[in-house]
Amino acid sequence: MFTFVGGLTGEWRIMRTDAVIGEPLPEAPRAEVVTSLVASAPQGALWLLRGVTSNERYVTRAERQLLVAKQPAPGRPEAVYAALIPIRKSDAWWELTQDERREIFETRSEHIKTGLRYLPAVARRLHHSRDLGEPFDFLTWFEYAPEHSVAFEELVVSLRVSEEWKYVVREVDIRLVRDVAA
Amino acid sequence: MFTFVGGLTGEWRIMRTDAVIGEPLPEAPRAEVVTSLVASAPQGALWLLRGVTSNERYVTRAERQLLVAKQPAPGRPEAVYAALIPIRKSDAWWELTQDERREIFETRSEHIKTGLRYLPAVARRLHHSRDLGEPFDFLTWFEYAPEHSVAFEELVVSLRVSEEWKYVVREVDIRLVRDVAA
Repeated sequence: MFTFVGGLTGEWRIMRTDAVIGEPLPEAPRAEVVTSLVASAPQGALWLLRGVTSNERYVTRAERQLLVAKQPAPGRPEAVYAALIPIRKSDAWWELTQDERREIFETRSEHIKTGLRYLPAVARRLHHSRDLGEPFDFLTWFEYAPEHSVAFEELVVSLRVSEEWKYVVREVDIRLVRDVAA
Repeated sequence: MFTFVGGLTGEWRIMRTDAVIGEPLPEAPRAEVVTSLVASAPQGALWLLRGVTSNERYVTRAERQLLVAKQPAPGRPEAVYAALIPIRKSDAWWELTQDERREIFETRSEHIKTGLRYLPAVARRLHHSRDLGEPFDFLTWFEYAPEHSVAFEELVVSLRVSEEWKYVVREVDIRLVRDVAA
């Protein structure tokens, strides 16, 4: 369980907070990543986003093997750039059945295949928020070294032009840099 | 979001509390079904179980159509019998990929097909608990009229002998009757 807190303190300095689709989030100068579910906003918090790393919903065994072989864990010292991208999908998405969601997610949008292309450069951790009653359905946390910035932009754009993204009704893109001196 | 509270009060009288697999739950005389997430156990509560009705994880469009056509909502006046069956699945289950879980769940265990056979007699509502950090992964609530008791026992036994159930590491079976006088 993870809580992301935007406010005046935290290891991560926020460079940009962009409302890509729908309602924005307040701009905060710093963010903290807490490895538990924080019940309520601490003093000075400007936003608080919670999520749970859960079992995979769409990945097949073959895809899992490719992912496991290539994906790094967050926390590599050289990966000082990060992005926190909370998204919410439409009711129409959630009313689809499992097979229909998988069809759009991978067969037509190649979400997994696209992500694989940017491994091991970009570390990624997905958090589920919808069942917690949070404002977003998912929070994805990415970490990468500065020399992979262009690759990371490519990855983000590839997903945003996909059919899956037509179901995204809210998306905020928060870019951060690890503050080595903090 | 739902909270089931076992204690001294509530609309439902508890007839039996059986530990089918693993650790039992304390026996309580009555239970209440609250349509929100109760943060902490109220005075006199002997157990408290929380869950969220969420999107379906395995059902295909064809199966959904069959289910929607036949399944009643809980709350029918004649359905005065109920069962609350919390289960927890093993780590081995959760480490399976989506396609492997679906294969065991339906192709080999016929979970959906079995449930369909007992519609519209048995109303059913599934609650997800795992991502809330609860002791169980799922809570299933069933309601049926007394004349469908034998059918309901058949349904429960069919699932318990299935391959899917080999992954169940904890199961409690709570049987209740709606207290019309309460």
